[in-house]
Formats: sequence, C-alpha cells, structure tokens
Amino acid sequence: MNIAIIGATGYGGIELLRFLQHHPYVTNCFVYSSSQDGMLLSDSFPHVGEKNEWMLQKIDIEQIVSTCDAVFFATPPGVSSELAPSLINQGIKVIDLSGDFRLKDRTVYEKWYKRQTAQSEYLQRAVYGLTEWNREQIKNAKLLSNPGCYPTATLLGLAPLVQNGLVEEDSIIVDAKSGVSGAGRQASLNTHFSEVNENLKIYKVNAHQHIPEIEQMLTDWNEHMQPITFSTHLVPMTRGIMATIYAKAKTDVSIEMLLDLYKTSYENSTFVRIRKQGQFPSTKEVYGSNYCDIGIAYDERTGRVTVVSVIDNLVKGAAGQAIQNFNVMMGWNETSGLLFAPIYP
Amino acid sequence: MNIAIIGATGYGGIELLRFLQHHPYVTNCFVYSSSQDGMLLSDSFPHVGEKNEWMLQKIDIEQIVSTCDAVFFATPPGVSSELAPSLINQGIKVIDLSGDFRLKDRTVYEKWYKRQTAQSEYLQRAVYGLTEWNREQIKNAKLLSNPGCYPTATLLGLAPLVQNGLVEEDSIIVDAKSGVSGAGRQASLNTHFSEVNENLKIYKVNAHQHIPEIEQMLTDWNEHMQPITFSTHLVPMTRGIMATIYAKAKTDVSIEMLLDLYKTSYENSTFVRIRKQGQFPSTKEVYGSNYCDIGIAYDERTGRVTVVSVIDNLVKGAAGQAIQNFNVMMGWNETSGLLFAPIYP
Amino acid sequence: MNIAIIGATGYGGIELLRFLQHHPYVTNCFVYSSSQDGMLLSDSFPHVGEKNEWMLQKIDIEQIVSTCDAVFFATPPGVSSELAPSLINQGIKVIDLSGDFRLKDRTVYEKWYKRQTAQSEYLQRAVYGLTEWNREQIKNAKLLSNPGCYPTATLLGLAPLVQNGLVEEDSIIVDAKSGVSGAGRQASLNTHFSEVNENLKIYKVNAHQHIPEIEQMLTDWNEHMQPITFSTHLVPMTRGIMATIYAKAKTDVSIEMLLDLYKTSYENSTFVRIRKQGQFPSTKEVYGSNYCDIGIAYDERTGRVTVVSVIDNLVKGAAGQAIQNFNVMMGWNETSGLLFAPIYP
Amino acid sequence: MNIAIIGATGYGGIELLRFLQHHPYVTNCFVYSSSQDGMLLSDSFPHVGEKNEWMLQKIDIEQIVSTCDAVFFATPPGVSSELAPSLINQGIKVIDLSGDFRLKDRTVYEKWYKRQTAQSEYLQRAVYGLTEWNREQIKNAKLLSNPGCYPTATLLGLAPLVQNGLVEEDSIIVDAKSGVSGAGRQASLNTHFSEVNENLKIYKVNAHQHIPEIEQMLTDWNEHMQPITFSTHLVPMTRGIMATIYAKAKTDVSIEMLLDLYKTSYENSTFVRIRKQGQFPSTKEVYGSNYCDIGIAYDERTGRVTVVSVIDNLVKGAAGQAIQNFNVMMGWNETSGLLFAPIYP
Repeated sequence: MNIAIIGATGYGGIELLRFLQHHPYVTNCFVYSSSQDGMLLSDSFPHVGEKNEWMLQKIDIEQIVSTCDAVFFATPPGVSSELAPSLINQGIKVIDLSGDFRLKDRTVYEKWYKRQTAQSEYLQRAVYGLTEWNREQIKNAKLLSNPGCYPTATLLGLAPLVQNGLVEEDSIIVDAKSGVSGAGRQASLNTHFSEVNENLKIYKVNAHQHIPEIEQMLTDWNEHMQPITFSTHLVPMTRGIMATIYAKAKTDVSIEMLLDLYKTSYENSTFVRIRKQGQFPSTKEVYGSNYCDIGIAYDERTGRVTVVSVIDNLVKGAAGQAIQNFNVMMGWNETSGLLFAPIYP
Repeated sequence: MNIAIIGATGYGGIELLRFLQHHPYVTNCFVYSSSQDGMLLSDSFPHVGEKNEWMLQKIDIEQIVSTCDAVFFATPPGVSSELAPSLINQGIKVIDLSGDFRLKDRTVYEKWYKRQTAQSEYLQRAVYGLTEWNREQIKNAKLLSNPGCYPTATLLGLAPLVQNGLVEEDSIIVDAKSGVSGAGRQASLNTHFSEVNENLKIYKVNAHQHIPEIEQMLTDWNEHMQPITFSTHLVPMTRGIMATIYAKAKTDVSIEMLLDLYKTSYENSTFVRIRKQGQFPSTKEVYGSNYCDIGIAYDERTGRVTVVSVIDNLVKGAAGQAIQNFNVMMGWNETSGLLFAPIYP
Repeated sequence: MNIAIIGATGYGGIELLRFLQHHPYVTNCFVYSSSQDGMLLSDSFPHVGEKNEWMLQKIDIEQIVSTCDAVFFATPPGVSSELAPSLINQGIKVIDLSGDFRLKDRTVYEKWYKRQTAQSEYLQRAVYGLTEWNREQIKNAKLLSNPGCYPTATLLGLAPLVQNGLVEEDSIIVDAKSGVSGAGRQASLNTHFSEVNENLKIYKVNAHQHIPEIEQMLTDWNEHMQPITFSTHLVPMTRGIMATIYAKAKTDVSIEMLLDLYKTSYENSTFVRIRKQGQFPSTKEVYGSNYCDIGIAYDERTGRVTVVSVIDNLVKGAAGQAIQNFNVMMGWNETSGLLFAPIYP
Repeated sequence: MNIAIIGATGYGGIELLRFLQHHPYVTNCFVYSSSQDGMLLSDSFPHVGEKNEWMLQKIDIEQIVSTCDAVFFATPPGVSSELAPSLINQGIKVIDLSGDFRLKDRTVYEKWYKRQTAQSEYLQRAVYGLTEWNREQIKNAKLLSNPGCYPTATLLGLAPLVQNGLVEEDSIIVDAKSGVSGAGRQASLNTHFSEVNENLKIYKVNAHQHIPEIEQMLTDWNEHMQPITFSTHLVPMTRGIMATIYAKAKTDVSIEMLLDLYKTSYENSTFVRIRKQGQFPSTKEVYGSNYCDIGIAYDERTGRVTVVSVIDNLVKGAAGQAIQNFNVMMGWNETSGLLFAPIYP
C-alpha cells in the first residue's frame, strides 16, 4: 500500500520516513510539503541520500486520494483539522501527529492552545492513539489522533496506578524533562545551540498544552481524578523524554505489589518494558526505538510512589507510536516495521 | 593570610584555587594531596599553567599549622573528620566541603552514609554554613561545615515558605537535576562520556545522602516538617544544579505575595536573586558564579507552589559558598573575591 | 545460521548484536564474555531488555565450534590472535574487529602497537576487509580482518586520488576527528564526562597505531606513496568520525573531474555516497548507519584537494562493515541487514 | 574612565561587559543597541541580574562622545566602518571587534566579504591588534582593529615559524575547529541545537573570510609566504577554538629547538603558554580565560611540524584581546582586568 507524509520536512515527518521506507507492508511513501514542494527531500535532509531520493510534492488532496491509502500528518497546529475531513470522507485513513484532534472539549483546547480547534464532529470521531490502552477503538479508527510526547510517557507511567485507584486523586505531580528535538526544526533563540548546550531550563510552568490532554485521559480512567501539577524542562540533548511522576499511595502498597501490577498490565505490550526492583531507565536506553521503559519506587518514609517513564520523543512520542497505531488500524501485527533495538551508546 | 587546600586535585579543590588565588585578603595558597604529593598541580590540571605553578605537598598537620591560617577540606568522606580536630585545637580555622560534619545526629549519618561519622564533640561545634540563613553563627565558627550542593539549592528555595509556615508540612517534593561534575573527578562507568552524553538518568531514588541534611535544616526552621520526597537526576552537562520544588500552599497565597516575600527575605543577600513574575532561571545563568537564582509560580488549579532554584554546583554548591563562609568567619565583606559575573554563553 | 560474538559487553559487540539480531540470514546470536560469563547481557546493557534476553557464556572454543558457523571478535588486542587460529582450522569463519591481523609486517605492528603480534601464517591468510575495494579477496576469506575506524574513513576518502596517481605522494595530511565511543567502554580520565564535554582534545600526535594500517593500504594501491601526516582529535560527541584530508594535486585537476571520478569509483557501492559540488557531509548525516559520505573541494589558490569523509565509527567503522564483509564472505547481498537509514536528528 | 559598548546584546558585547564591569580602571560601562534601546540588558540576558542593571541606550554619537572615553564595537559588518570615523575624529578611542578594518586592501575585503569596505583613510589608520606582536603600534592606536578568532589562534601558533623562515612558504595547512558561539546569537538552522549537537560539520571550505586576514599578517612577517589552506569545522560545544597547523620544515629542525624558540618568543607574553614536549592543550584548558595555549610536535618521518593552538573564541578571540589591546592603548598593564583563571571543568 502507498502512504503519504504531509509535513515531511520537519523532524516528525523525517522520522516517519525512517521507519516507513522499510515497513514490510508499505510499497511507496510520498512526501508533501506546503513550503518546499518541487524540491528534493535531500535538499533539506542530506542524510537521506541521493541514491534513494524523494521529491517533495505540493499538498493536493485529490492527488493524494488517488495515490495513497493512508495519510500521516506531521504538521503544525491547524493543518490537519483543515485537511483531514475531506480525506477521511473519501475513505483515506488519517493518522494525525499534531494536537488538532486530541482534546474532545473545544473550550479546553481553546483555553490551552490559544487558538481555534477542529470541528466537533471530527473531534468526536477521532480516536486517541495511546496504543497500549485503546487497541480496540484504534482497530476501527478512520481518524487517529496520535498522543503528544509528554502525555505518552506520563500516561503509560500512570495508567496502572490510576486505573486501579491506588493513589490519592489530588496528589499527582509530573516533573517532565525533554530533549530539544521536541521543539521541532524551526530555529529560535530557545533552541539556539549556545543557549541550550550546558544548560537546563524549565518552561511553560503550569501552562503546557499537554496538561489537559493528560487530564482528559486520566479522568476517562478514573472520574475522581483532580488536576495535576506538570512541569517541563529542556535538557541539553536531542532526543529523549523522562517523566518523573510522584503520587501519594492511597492504601498500603508495597514495591513488590506495584511491580507485579505493572508487569501484568503490560505483559502483552511489546513496547513497554518494566525494570526490576531498584532499577530505573535512562533515556538513552530507548534511543531511536519505540520502547517505553518504566521503573517504580515506593518510599515508606513518605508514602509516595515514584514512577520513572522514558521514551524517545520522536519515536514512541511521535512517529513510532503513529506507525504502531497504523499497524493496529490495518489489522497487522502491532510491531511491524518497528522492532529496532535502541542505539546504544 | 595564608590558606591551605587539602584535596586540591579534585574539582572542589581546583575551584577553590580559582577563586582564592585572586582573593583580596589571601596572600598564599598552599595545596595538599595525599596521593600526588611532590607533583606539580599542572601535571593534574594543565589549565593552571606553568607560569603560575603550585607544588602539591604531603598532608602534614604540623607543617600546615605553622604555615597557614585557615584550611579548606575538599576531600572524600572520612578525611576531615580525622584531621580537622587537631587543626581547630591549634587555632586554625577549618572550612570543610565534605559531608563529615553536616549531620548532628550520628545515627542518621550512619544510616544514610553507610559509614562511621565524626566525633560528637566536633559535630556539635561544627556550624552549618548555609550563609544566607546562618550568618551570626558563622561569624564565630571555628569549624565550618559547608552545605552539600543539592541542599544549598533546595534550602535557599524553600526557606521563605517553610520559615513562614506557608506550605503543608508533608507536601514537599524536590525534583533535583545536576550536571556531572558533582560526581567528582574519579572515572567510573556512571560518568563515562558515552554513557552520560545524550542521556538523562535518575539515581539514588529516595536514598540520596543529602535528604537528611535538607530535613535537618527544615526541622530547625519548622519543627512540624515531615519527611520530603527528593529525587536526583544526572543531566548531560558539566556544571549546574536545578531544584524544582513542589509544595501545597496551606492557605490562600498569591504569586504577588510570594514574590514579595522572597524579595524581602533575600534583599540583603547579594548572591540570591529572585526572578520577576513569570520568569524562571536556567542553570547557565549562574554558570561559574556564586549566585543562586530563584523563580516562583503559584498554580490556582492545584493550589501548589513551584519554586525553581539554580546554582553552579561547584561554586555556590561548593567552593564559592565555602569562601563566602570564610569571608563571614573572618569578618570581611561576604562577597570578597566572589563577585564574578556568570559566564554566558 | 548461528553466529557468535566474542566480547559482547563492549560497544563494538553490542553494536554487532543490534544489527545481527535482525539479520535475515542469522538464526541465533550467542554472546561470549571472558569477564562476565553467567550474567545476563541486560545486566550490562539494560537497553537490550528483559523480554529479549541473552546469557553471556564463557569463551569455550569447542562449544563455539559445535554451535556456530561464524565468529565475530570485538575484543581488546591479543585475544583474537590467540583464539582465531583454532577456529578457522575447524572451518569456522572469523571476522575480527580488533587490530590483531591488520598489519602484514610484524615489525611494523610491534613498533606502533608496542606489543607482540599474531603468527605470520595467519597474518598472511587474513584478508583486509575494506569492503568497497577488496570484494574479490573477501569472498574467499576465512579470516577477515576488519579495518580500523579511522582507516575506513581515510582510505575510502583517498582511494580514487591515490589509485589514479592524482596527488603528490608526499603531500597527504589527514586531520581526523572522532566521537568518544571509539575509546570503548572502559572508564578513564580521558573519557570522563566532565573532562570531555565542552572540550576538544588532540591525542597521539604522529603516533596513532592506525597510521601504518593506512599507509599499508596506500602503498598497496600506489607503491610510490610516502609517509602521511595523521592527527586524531577527540570531539565531545558519542559517535562519528570525520577525516579532513588534504593533498596537493599533481596535475591540473578540476572539481568536476574529481566529482566524476568519485561518483564512478563508488557507483556500485551502496554505502558510499558522494555529495554534490559545494556540499560536504557532517557526521550526524550517517549516524547509526553504515554509510560513508564524502565531499570534495579543489582550491585553485593552493592547488590542493580537500576530501571530507564521514562515518559512524561504530557502524561503518566497526560492526557495520564487519557484517558487510560477513555478507560478502557468505555470498549474500552485501547490504543484507544493514539498510537502516541514519537517525536524524 | 567611562567606556561604551556598542552591540551589547550579542555574545561579544556581553563578554566585554563581563570583564569591563570589574576592570580596575573603568568607572562606568554604558551599553548601546540599535535594536533594543530602552530595554534592560537583563531582558536579553537574565544572567546579568536585576540588582546590577544596565539600560540599553540608543546609539547616539554625540551622546557617546560627551560621556565616554573609549568605545568598543561588537557589531555586525558595516556598523563600525560607518560610526568609528566621527568618534576618533572627536578624540574617542575605538576598539573594533568586527572585521570592518582588518584588511588593508579594499579589493581583498570585497572579494572575501562580498560587501563594501571602510574608507581607505581609516583602513590605513587602523592598527591590527594581535597584541603579542604589535604592541608598539598599538600603544599609539586611536582605531584598533581587533583580530578575528581564527586568525588569533592561527597567527600566534605560526608566528615563530614564519618570522624565522623555518617552514616551506607554500606548505601551511590550518585545520581549525570552533565552538558554536562564534556564530553569534542570531538563531539559524546552522546553529539549531538538534542540528549541531552530536554532530561535527565542516563549513566555508577554502572560502572563510579569515583567510585573507591571516595571509596579510603572514606576508607582513615574511614576504615570500604563499596562500594557505584553511578549513573551519563546527564542534558541538559552545566555546573554544583549536587550530591544528601543519607545515613542512625547511631545514633540519628538532623538537627541542622549536620548543625553545616558542618559549623565548613568548616569554614576555603572559597570555601565551607553551606546553612541554609531548603535551598538547585542549580547548577547555583556556575556557573563559584570555590564554592562548600552544603545543608543538615535529615528525621525523614526514619532516612536518604540527602546532596546536587553542583559545576561548569569545575571550582571546574577541572580548579579552580587545581589552588587552585597550590596556596597551591606555598605557596600563596589559593584563589589567584579565587575570582570570580558566574555568575547569
């Protein structure tokens, strides 16, 4: 089958292509760009090479419909909400890596994103692609809304605790840290090497647009959940997210019980790996791969659980999970084209 | 006056020398090493240069007493607790950068450090050198115990909240991040470049030896304080600590009130700088300097205060604060020899 | 078929496993270690994961012969020269990533490596695995000596110039730069994060053991070649080698002629990519992949050619080229199991 | 005395302020900006702090003349050539960190910079501030043209060889490497963190505008000098330049003779330090300081000399040397305000 990548000149788009060009069920990848159509992809990304070249095409819905079976959007806010409806109405499956369809409540979107959201009809039809917890819905999805990078790490880390009511509903604090590639390829002072290197910054304190996305899922799992505290830090590295999650245990828990729960919760999920007692993952241990690695601690002094969840923000936090969802939508093995080992070191 | 640096071949020692060689009241610095006596300091650290050379001397208490007026220890655990008593008994002022004299309670030390502590008498005589809050005691100190790097950032960030009883006593969570130089100069897999670069790790979860040091001071300030949750992360950079601190406000507070409180609390403290509303410090903004920069947020959704406190771990977190304390002990201006601007970028 | 990796706990070994576990013609990989036998590979490298586990085995030649069809050595000096002979005598193909069999002249080895070399018989039987230029010999090799990382980048960059006699034989200067993973996983002050980060070092000036390896191949190609000047620098990054090569053109050359020559020379070599005029590769453009990317300039002011050649030192400079050679030895497509796109960014 | 910094919102400008605010003979620093006048410097650079604040002023020559005794330009091309003449005509000393006045030959400037140069009269009056070799001229300079970062490292490394005619005039190759801060604070894809981190790039091959600046000085020293080959690389670090310099010895030289020559050449130059035989400087060994450290090797196999010269590009390569020149111009001790030790690690 043929697929289209819209927004191929960004980091999300090029990462989709890294996996999809070798995907066992994908025949051709076509790449589209609103700003650089007519250019070769290697003009933007010399690493793709001239021997294996892609021409960037103008975004033309009719042309895409006639050529492709599925479309991935790796675009800035506002693009997929405009273009996806006509695609899905013509039977094309859409996987959207942007935030356009993630929030069901339009007022919430507009409050946090400070812009207009998509049409209600399509917000309702969009399936939230946290693969490990939404597989049944994803199977029938026509419009797949791929989770944000921070929500993926956070929600996979919190799911067993929240679904099983093990922690105080108002006690969750997520201290999240990300590599810089999450900010995309657009140059700015915030991502200027000399400003970021040998530096650690906090940003969007209590104001990150991923907060409502996390809370929406938590409330779906447990209607008593209260607002969370969520902070994001910029770490001087390119890839990787770590969510360090703190919550107060509701009842007596033990580390053995928690590890059992996590291992059971994810025993059928290839891409979630639970560390042994006393061990915690680092971001490099999932570098370039679709894994989410999780470590857990319970502190008897304070009664708090600490969960450490790491992903590669461009893979499990973006392109990898998008393909994982695509696989589920198509009825293929969830891991198709994604079983790459992390690159280490 | 003449000063001695014991342990000059580590990062703490060489950083002391960076400042002390230009200190307006210091005539000579003598450098001592147990392992490399007889060698030139430039054999270990070529950056000090041959034109301005130091010979590493054997640690000989009598020789030190006859030559120096004050001694700085930048040594591994167990050295200063053995050597400091005879120095102070002979009238030499001691500033100890190690953890040997930080904890008053011997059983607490032994539990967290897994080793024997110093003699009780000297533990009681040691003054804890969190300069901004202990100036009066420091003036008369003969044995100064310099705070750890994490406690410095954390306690300066928490002091106004805890001293004024503004937060729930059992609600404090400190998510701390450090550059790698805090681990010292001893090579190990944990500090091996290829393992640390482009990586973010968490370590000593709920088990860092700085936890009781922080709690000791908090309880001194407010006897109702409960155990804290404290996590430490290794960030791929050389210098810098950020403590992101979360606590539940006890009563209605506002961001304006908090900023006022912090500015007032530190108005006479040159080295603590409070950011404007909505602004938060990054670690590079204090790089190489003795500043501790602090930003504060209050989130009405959750009722939580977030405090962000950054230092250079080798300066305000070690050598710089040690010299600041030395200045106070000697009755000099607290800032003598320390007014260097941060290096940026 | 089954393969053995000896020295699986180093960076070369684990990189072999990254590729070989997904290689289309490899059924099982067995991993061997002299120091950690009986342990799980994930104890050393948590990123490999518990769901997909390998047990490190003791190095036992008879057991290896009875189980495996080919053996990869990713070992320190002196191991393969001792163990390889009995393996190849029992019909096992050996691919050696160490330097033990690279130099044909024993006195040269001993001069540069400061240690004893392998037996002459096996030195003569060993085939030097610079795949792009030795394919015919490699097809029949039983003992394959895989090139060093610096020689690979340098020789692929120099081959067309030297083979065609286009440059003065005494004019070659190679200024080489490497990421830190080339130094292996053994912790040392030279690879300590705080010493390497935000630092650039030169090392082994005129004394690197890869110099005779390069000169041996150059002289094979052109008997008039003179000694080269070769310098190596340590760059604060984990992966990547760049060789910046300077040589004086012998006769009038033009950039168009040079580009044509390079493109023709490598037109049947998938893993060597020649950049367009005016473009030069950066190391990240081959990150994690088996590509060698080359850019060329000719300066009319000085009559010098500049060639820039980049590889990932752990892939084309070690494990990737080893597998490429293995493929050629087995008669498979040279690219089997190696067609991964570079990870960017 | 009072000084003005024009272009204070760039990295060169802020680095000038780091040193000048503590300079023993400077009373006040005034900061000027064409784009951000009326703003506080701390709005651009929070690290300077609110307790010690500067207001950015509009560039007004008359106001500057009435307030300041000397002016430093840390501006993009074309600014100082326009503004400096009226300042020096009114008796204000000018130190220009830009390239506007560096090349005496207008056609050469226009060829390499691709833009118009300054008026001939002022080009002739400008003194090139390679302090160690031009002290006499600098003493009387009214318009000081501060050398580029690469030329500083290169020329200090080459001076003894070229002045004494020890190397073949057509044999010089300079392989230069720089940290990213040399590119300034303007955001661009080339300095975007995710593109630069864990990457090594070569740029402006044979085309860097510092080439004619180097050649002009070399020819002044030795009229027989031929064009040099000069390459520049971008290293994933913020500060530091290393020039690795290769040249063919003309006559029999020895390493002892070369080291003697270098030590003698710089024995009265505090800021140039020559390493012992077999030792070479790394960039971190001069970090944040005004030192230029040099190591030398002679290879009998090839008859080539290798010189390794390192500086901090923002200090000895910009602001530090500018102040060193300012000190000489004013008749003060050359090291005034500059004797900071390198920050290590």
